Amino acid sequence: MAKSNIYKAEDLYDFMVRFFVKLGVPQDRAEITAEVLQAADLRGVNSHGMIRLHTYYGSRLQKGLIDPLAEPEIIRESVASIAIDGKNGLGQVVAKQAMQACIKKAENSGIAMVTVNNSNHYGIAGYYAMIALEHDMIGISLTNAQPLVAPTYGRKRLLGTNPIAVAAPALNHRPYVLDMATSIVPIGKVTVYQKAGEEIPAGWGMDQTGQITSDPSQVLNGGALFPLGGSDLMRGYKGYGLALLVDILSGVLSGAAFGENVGKSGQNLASNVGHFFAAMRLDAFRDPEEFKQDLDALFDQLTKAEKAVGQERIYIHGEKEFELTEQYQKHGIPLMEEVVKNLQEAGESVGVAFDLIPIGETET
Amino acid sequence: MAKSNIYKAEDLYDFMVRFFVKLGVPQDRAEITAEVLQAADLRGVNSHGMIRLHTYYGSRLQKGLIDPLAEPEIIRESVASIAIDGKNGLGQVVAKQAMQACIKKAENSGIAMVTVNNSNHYGIAGYYAMIALEHDMIGISLTNAQPLVAPTYGRKRLLGTNPIAVAAPALNHRPYVLDMATSIVPIGKVTVYQKAGEEIPAGWGMDQTGQITSDPSQVLNGGALFPLGGSDLMRGYKGYGLALLVDILSGVLSGAAFGENVGKSGQNLASNVGHFFAAMRLDAFRDPEEFKQDLDALFDQLTKAEKAVGQERIYIHGEKEFELTEQYQKHGIPLMEEVVKNLQEAGESVGVAFDLIPIGETET
Repeated sequence: MAKSNIYKAEDLYDFMVRFFVKLGVPQDRAEITAEVLQAADLRGVNSHGMIRLHTYYGSRLQKGLIDPLAEPEIIRESVASIAIDGKNGLGQVVAKQAMQACIKKAENSGIAMVTVNNSNHYGIAGYYAMIALEHDMIGISLTNAQPLVAPTYGRKRLLGTNPIAVAAPALNHRPYVLDMATSIVPIGKVTVYQKAGEEIPAGWGMDQTGQITSDPSQVLNGGALFPLGGSDLMRGYKGYGLALLVDILSGVLSGAAFGENVGKSGQNLASNVGHFFAAMRLDAFRDPEEFKQDLDALFDQLTKAEKAVGQERIYIHGEKEFELTEQYQKHGIPLMEEVVKNLQEAGESVGVAFDLIPIGETET
Repeated sequence: MAKSNIYKAEDLYDFMVRFFVKLGVPQDRAEITAEVLQAADLRGVNSHGMIRLHTYYGSRLQKGLIDPLAEPEIIRESVASIAIDGKNGLGQVVAKQAMQACIKKAENSGIAMVTVNNSNHYGIAGYYAMIALEHDMIGISLTNAQPLVAPTYGRKRLLGTNPIAVAAPALNHRPYVLDMATSIVPIGKVTVYQKAGEEIPAGWGMDQTGQITSDPSQVLNGGALFPLGGSDLMRGYKGYGLALLVDILSGVLSGAAFGENVGKSGQNLASNVGHFFAAMRLDAFRDPEEFKQDLDALFDQLTKAEKAVGQERIYIHGEKEFELTEQYQKHGIPLMEEVVKNLQEAGESVGVAFDLIPIGETET
């Protein structure tokens, strides 16, 4: 249990924009970056929200490791695809431009795909996939990331938690928004257990010999995360295959770094992260209304079906996050005291005081 | 341990072609169907090979539930996509045509996607993804299937084991070929344990109340398979999300059946299975040689890395299957005695005697 202060979403957003502008990021780009970070906090994915404002983005901007003025460049283009060089710009800015270019392309060709290299951590993958929804398209967003996951039968961190995000619009139901790391859990989850002095469930991580361990410190110090599925017996090689797939499409196909060469957050080097986006017009395949009606029907099959004993609800992917977003937009976003302390220090370091007044408190 | 007879691959192929021709399938279509079924056996995925020759394909052709003369029809087309009505033809025939159309489309537009509805079980998903390899493309193949998997917190079979297959060409390494069900294991694996009187690993399946069971009979009689990941604690909702994704793209987007409505193998109804294919020209994004060199480098990072204690080798997806194919092509394909018996009965039922002479025996 940790105490959290609750802040108005707009206040936090304004602070982030001022923070980025102070670091030399143009106003419109600061707004995009703040919006993507806030989308993570609003969706309850706080590992990808303000907690990283300074530890990743601010500190790297200060060190000149991210170029706030980068102008991404098209390096290849076909009828239905674009390959973009991100020029080491802010991941959020480059990625949003890329997804918008992908959607524009799909408007003409029915579907489109866009790769990006020379980019940086772009926040939550789901943000970009969801842009497609308002265009009556299905959106896909993938990115590679610093190595934390060991392949099946290995013990070395060679692949990122490489997420897969896909968004598809329904009619009366909320959209389907899958936004999943291809590891079982993110590394931050293991840190939470370590700080709480608790054991992690057997299967989430391995020690430095490659064996399953329930000691979070063993995972954090020389160990690695297991891919989705976990052990061989539970078909962890499928999660390994998905992490590798994301690296092939985001890293290798884009010409970015891949595998163990993707920039680690502590390194004083450009990250050279790679992304992959796709957009598909519903009406390229079917009448969009019929698609949405059928998606509603599928969601009804799932959510109205008998529950496992002891369970009360079956969820569609994204549903919990939409409900949380509505709650947080109305009642404010909780930030753990530790995060608030980091933001105060970050503000001092950059020269933009984090002097927001909380509108409440909560225990999380 | 079960005794297997070993047959020459060509002999089995010839038998299958004669079998299908006898059932009214034109010669060229019989050859395609036999080729895809044999590809499964050659890759060691015997659950999708000759074992299904009669139980699924033959029996449904006999009952008129699959139309051997179907002429698939384009129902929508955009610059880079096609939507096809499979007209209840043989899944393998429709799917191969669709993937070839997808590749042709991608030759012009850089990338392409094709959906298919009104189709049938198409064998191994990987077969179609791999067709892209010889064209210097990345191939993707998805299909929905009869419901066997329960969603997280549910207990009812609502989704298929909906596979994801992706193939990408390397230079000196063999291609990457991911071909994975989005459940932990296929239902056939549970049957094998039941027949052997053994317990299944806890997590593969649930009983009719939705609880994890190690009794294979509980899974088979009213229970369901868990999606990849298994329980909520191990993030089974990600596997559930992937199974749902495959159903959205193959079933809902194509206008086929979806969820619990996909045809069950025992039902006297057209299956209305849906497929999804994509093809991506490497040179739409990058110089193909550079892509392949980097993919080799990524595979080297993975396969040459330190192994977990007790392990000797780290695999790339598809590697084991390529090795098995070479072995089986040279030394013959083992078929379990039970399968041979089924083939003999199938041959009698159709009027094409399974009178092949085994070239050896083995225990598997």
